[in-house]
Amino acid sequence: MSQEEPPPAGPQRLRRQADLALYRADAIHAVVDACPIAHIAFVHEGLPVAIPMAVWRSGSHLYFHAANKGRLATVCAGADVCISMACFDGLVLARSAFNHSFNYRSVVVHGRADVVEDESERLAALRAFMEQLLPGRWQELRPVHDNEMRATVILRVDLACAAAKVRVGDPTDEAEDGDWPVWVGVLPQSAMWQAPRAAATLLPDLPLPAYLQAFLPA
Amino acid sequence: MSQEEPPPAGPQRLRRQADLALYRADAIHAVVDACPIAHIAFVHEGLPVAIPMAVWRSGSHLYFHAANKGRLATVCAGADVCISMACFDGLVLARSAFNHSFNYRSVVVHGRADVVEDESERLAALRAFMEQLLPGRWQELRPVHDNEMRATVILRVDLACAAAKVRVGDPTDEAEDGDWPVWVGVLPQSAMWQAPRAAATLLPDLPLPAYLQAFLPA
Repeated sequence: MSQEEPPPAGPQRLRRQADLALYRADAIHAVVDACPIAHIAFVHEGLPVAIPMAVWRSGSHLYFHAANKGRLATVCAGADVCISMACFDGLVLARSAFNHSFNYRSVVVHGRADVVEDESERLAALRAFMEQLLPGRWQELRPVHDNEMRATVILRVDLACAAAKVRVGDPTDEAEDGDWPVWVGVLPQSAMWQAPRAAATLLPDLPLPAYLQAFLPA
Repeated sequence: MSQEEPPPAGPQRLRRQADLALYRADAIHAVVDACPIAHIAFVHEGLPVAIPMAVWRSGSHLYFHAANKGRLATVCAGADVCISMACFDGLVLARSAFNHSFNYRSVVVHGRADVVEDESERLAALRAFMEQLLPGRWQELRPVHDNEMRATVILRVDLACAAAKVRVGDPTDEAEDGDWPVWVGVLPQSAMWQAPRAAATLLPDLPLPAYLQAFLPA
């Protein structure tokens, strides 16, 4: 977790528990890639709004999609947004209430949400989303219809102004609390994939595709 | 998931996929209680900011804490905030890219963040946070010091202006796609507690407390 470069001067700079901050692109990308849902914050009529949305990364940009003419697409297009995401990794149990904590991996991104206009870029972005989750599935699907593309706005935010904050490991107690006789440690939590569950509408005799077989119990 | 009352007129009213909205307090509370981390959005110097924070519920209010004199406490005290949280429950695999979705449980709260001022209410709020997660632990801990309380600002937001949005179950395909031969169904994901992991500083001969034994593998 050590940080070799000096912290950036922009809005992504962490002030609280700055020793947990990571500004390297690889650290930020790893957290982004682990969070299927992020929370898009924007200002609408002077008030803060945050909406949970599916997000995905392609290269150095974070992408999300929105319904055409909906509030998210309309208000965010070309506007400043702040996107926050986190994976909860466990409870951290210390000897004092004050030193309790969570283990987590989080990223906060500041930037402008730009609408992706070029039709082939739009399709490539959606394809990248699918391919990262389920490689090989895109080409099996019923091809995208023009009206589906028209109904979808794709926005992206540069990850240049982002910071990760990651806490791992044991609690940190005050030195003078070291002999207080209470259990200390971590109660971990993990996001686990379960076995694929076929829809009622699955056609008979369709085998489970290769990209899903990895999720079957060993 | 059916909604018997008419939707509210306030900012919590969902416009997209409004059939997934739940406005009953019990539905909102169930999602809040399942989300250890929420994303607090506020406006700072005209720009949107969102920060991942531990949150907890007590009665009909959502609570979070912040470092005294820090930006979160200073900017949010008495200010409008929007708090967003979500549990990801799985990928929903349809026959077209457009009909793919996530299963999830989410809540968005709009409201003013009020600082809890009364000292006994402040202590009660922190105790409620601990007791919900680990019932019985609070009284085992080294008692809270005055300087720890002074370092902590506790804020709360009324859950009166909130909405849950929950998607469960199978994909929904267009009727004309029904014979497209691709696997359809859900790839579920669940947040699973793991066995408690003792800290290196755990004193010898301290048994695992009762409130943690439920997390041991069967």
